[in-house]
Amino acid sequence: MKQFINTKETLVTEAIDGALRIAGGRLARLDGYPHIKVVVRADWDKSKVALVSGGGSGHEPSHAGFVGQGMLTAAVCGEVFASPSVDAVLAGILAVTGKAGCLLIVKNYTGDRLNFGLAAERARAQGLNVNMVVVDDDVALPDLPQARGVAGTLFVHKIAGALADQGTDLTTVTEAAQRVIDGVVSIGMSLDTCTLPGSPKEDRIEAGKAELGLGIHGEAGIEQVDFSTARDAMEMVVDRLAPNIGPGPHVALLNNLGGATPLEMSVLAEELARSRIGAQVNWMVGPAPLMTSLDMQGFSVSLMPVSKADEPALLAPVAPWAWPGCLALSDVAVQPIPDGLTPIQPMASKHDARRGFIQRCCEALIAAEADLNTLDAKSGDGDTGSTLSTAARALIEALDRLPLADLTQLYRAIGLELSQTMGGSSGVLLAIFFAAAGDASASGRGAIDALKAGLDRVQQVGGARPGDRTMIDALFPALEALQNGAGQAARAAREGADLTATITRAKAGRASYIGEDKLAGHNDPGAEAVARLFEFIATDSQRASETA
Amino acid sequence: MKQFINTKETLVTEAIDGALRIAGGRLARLDGYPHIKVVVRADWDKSKVALVSGGGSGHEPSHAGFVGQGMLTAAVCGEVFASPSVDAVLAGILAVTGKAGCLLIVKNYTGDRLNFGLAAERARAQGLNVNMVVVDDDVALPDLPQARGVAGTLFVHKIAGALADQGTDLTTVTEAAQRVIDGVVSIGMSLDTCTLPGSPKEDRIEAGKAELGLGIHGEAGIEQVDFSTARDAMEMVVDRLAPNIGPGPHVALLNNLGGATPLEMSVLAEELARSRIGAQVNWMVGPAPLMTSLDMQGFSVSLMPVSKADEPALLAPVAPWAWPGCLALSDVAVQPIPDGLTPIQPMASKHDARRGFIQRCCEALIAAEADLNTLDAKSGDGDTGSTLSTAARALIEALDRLPLADLTQLYRAIGLELSQTMGGSSGVLLAIFFAAAGDASASGRGAIDALKAGLDRVQQVGGARPGDRTMIDALFPALEALQNGAGQAARAAREGADLTATITRAKAGRASYIGEDKLAGHNDPGAEAVARLFEFIATDSQRASETA
Repeated sequence: MKQFINTKETLVTEAIDGALRIAGGRLARLDGYPHIKVVVRADWDKSKVALVSGGGSGHEPSHAGFVGQGMLTAAVCGEVFASPSVDAVLAGILAVTGKAGCLLIVKNYTGDRLNFGLAAERARAQGLNVNMVVVDDDVALPDLPQARGVAGTLFVHKIAGALADQGTDLTTVTEAAQRVIDGVVSIGMSLDTCTLPGSPKEDRIEAGKAELGLGIHGEAGIEQVDFSTARDAMEMVVDRLAPNIGPGPHVALLNNLGGATPLEMSVLAEELARSRIGAQVNWMVGPAPLMTSLDMQGFSVSLMPVSKADEPALLAPVAPWAWPGCLALSDVAVQPIPDGLTPIQPMASKHDARRGFIQRCCEALIAAEADLNTLDAKSGDGDTGSTLSTAARALIEALDRLPLADLTQLYRAIGLELSQTMGGSSGVLLAIFFAAAGDASASGRGAIDALKAGLDRVQQVGGARPGDRTMIDALFPALEALQNGAGQAARAAREGADLTATITRAKAGRASYIGEDKLAGHNDPGAEAVARLFEFIATDSQRASETA
Repeated sequence: MKQFINTKETLVTEAIDGALRIAGGRLARLDGYPHIKVVVRADWDKSKVALVSGGGSGHEPSHAGFVGQGMLTAAVCGEVFASPSVDAVLAGILAVTGKAGCLLIVKNYTGDRLNFGLAAERARAQGLNVNMVVVDDDVALPDLPQARGVAGTLFVHKIAGALADQGTDLTTVTEAAQRVIDGVVSIGMSLDTCTLPGSPKEDRIEAGKAELGLGIHGEAGIEQVDFSTARDAMEMVVDRLAPNIGPGPHVALLNNLGGATPLEMSVLAEELARSRIGAQVNWMVGPAPLMTSLDMQGFSVSLMPVSKADEPALLAPVAPWAWPGCLALSDVAVQPIPDGLTPIQPMASKHDARRGFIQRCCEALIAAEADLNTLDAKSGDGDTGSTLSTAARALIEALDRLPLADLTQLYRAIGLELSQTMGGSSGVLLAIFFAAAGDASASGRGAIDALKAGLDRVQQVGGARPGDRTMIDALFPALEALQNGAGQAARAAREGADLTATITRAKAGRASYIGEDKLAGHNDPGAEAVARLFEFIATDSQRASETA
């Protein structure tokens, strides 16, 4: 059983209880489990017209999810896809109906009509004022006067609910509900069937096909059609709806039948807006799961004409969270890309000592290419040397355009160059290192402190710490020691790099995915590169001081 | 391709546009398609701390669905399951960041950390004040310090969003976000994998198994476990979470990973509330799709400790509809079943003429049993006669307890008897007929008019009209003629019943599902029964008047 349920028999009652627990005290149920499953407003004082709907379960959030101020007063729930009993409906009516009376909103299925109808009679026999309307919005079967009631039912809940909430009398609420029913049309399409609780899914719709004009109880659509794209699918749906609507503004309800993803539903919303009836769709409710058919991967579109007089009732806020609101359909608002996306190249400037230093450092890394690749091959894909030397060569080529005289700008510029020339995570991390060093330098920190700030940021962004077998194992001690001279830094870097050969449980970076046996006994190539670089710098500065 | 999309390449941009169209003008996007997919608040004036999140798409409503007052200022969207580029993140930061600065909320994936991290550096280089926090709430992999960021991220959006909305400074907002991250833990479970757009679904999880500790990108869970019920599933999840939380009140976020039905999610909510940590769960967010993994049929639970100081930020209302609110978890409120559910048996009373009339009518129907069954067998299941005679026999047995002296009560009582003894739709419809007749009689209408009112109600509830090949074809003309005597009524009923033999396109009732060839040339059995009954009544009243 591929479903998060306990038993088929307890599914609906457990689901109702789960929903009630998180209703924030807004809802209650009648004490009639398992046969009487009625969800009611907990704050209901019977002073206004009550609205009762319901039917089989499996269509959640319909209808219990729409109980609350501004929509339903009670929902009578049957088992999955089965009408509730006359007693259950009667219990719902009796629980919420006061002197203002009650309107039953029933979807056009024989079982629901009869059970709600007889319950209404029983309630009337007790002196209650009960009206009933039957929703038949499905246009899938044009020749049958007994059209099914599907997601358009939500419009009845909404319009009648708003009027009832205002204290409108039963006759007026009923007439308004009937007017909605007369105007609303719906049709659905699905790429797959639904899974009945406790049963395997019926495999009815083959690849490349969709069903058009389906109901909400797993019954087959009126036809199988070829399916290619969301655009074609929406066009077929619009082809069925368009002949059934008049001119003038409409509201569309875009219903997820259960198993379509939010991404798919948003694409369908876009296609509906772009369709030939899009210009007539002034408002949209959804896309959202409103009248589902268990996990069916499909959607339905319901359209209702909207007069000026209907607008307030349609747009009025309601308590039930499941109602996504009714929003004006608008063009996509597009704002210009902000300035500053393309980094401004800093003005090049000269500084012979720095230029020479950078060039020699780069050459030292290029010289280490083969060694580092060999080392990397032992635990990785053998390209650490190549990646670094490619970046080093690019940096040498960039020397003429670097702002060498301004250390802050230089750090930032090196970061920018590396982000554009050095691939992979290490390229981004070195870019972050130099960019953060530039920021720190800009805020007045010295050269070494700025580099330490860069390393802090690399640790924050990359998530690695010393001891994680990354280049940080060499870079961190080297920067700590750097204030005592390049020689100390080089020794610290070498010590740190050599220590990585003993770290066989990598916690970050690529090596964290690699077995311990492949890591033991040889240095992390990134840490080794840092050690080589600092060793070169120590030699270089030694040579420079000897020359001086 | 079993998905409502157009192309994989246009999926995310079309989905974003679809979502923007129905945002009621609240949202806009930057003009950078296809590479820069950034959704921003349209009403943003940069006067407060901006919150920017994002990452790969496929997790909708995260994160674009949470852009709006009280939550995010911008969402930077990548392709499905792919991090957005540095440029895209930078564009998002630049578009919304003013003097108050910006907080980046990043889920702990290398790509996101690096791209958001480098974009942050670039923004800082332009003088913007940008902080970044990394969410790592997944407790599936307890030994890895690099825990993944999953649905707990929503708590960071919510708490930081509420503080930012109040005008709190960047440092305080960042500290609060980090505090949430330090406290929140999450774990997920799924019964199936997700379907990557344009690809077939990987069939990794066999029947009877579930994956525990899965990520939100289709990666395998840390283990496959045996799956039996929702209760066991939630217990396994709670087993993983419980060791990671402290004492004191928590809020739970119950996330639908995409493909679980609302019914399943409600059952899981109930199980979480009943679980051994249920007493510590004071609030719940959801169940709702919040951080999905395309269509994955799974759920995740995130827990965050809630101090008194956190409550206002947690509970503050927000603009994004995708946030379902945070509601106090309560016991299920249960109201008593209302009085009046069991109909009060009317006081029996005597009326010899009516008693005899009813008895003879019933006997006439019993006598017609075989004929009516034969007729029904031609187009149905051959039981119309048996159904009617069973009800007639039961009514005869009930005569002693019927309120024969009071016509109003009598009509109602017959309706009640029929609803309890006569099965099928026709039993309910006849029950409605007599109950409605009783109501009409109670409001002062005469005997015949009351029956007509009953028939009106039957037509409303049953949906059939004269000409639809039902018993109404005989009953309607009979009642119209009844004021002119039983003889006229009988002739009208016979005429109507015989006409049904020519109606080969039934529009209501069971015959509407039957081929024309099976209907032609013989009467509808219900209409025939009515005709027989009125013919008997005519003979009976003739005999009575002759006797008199």
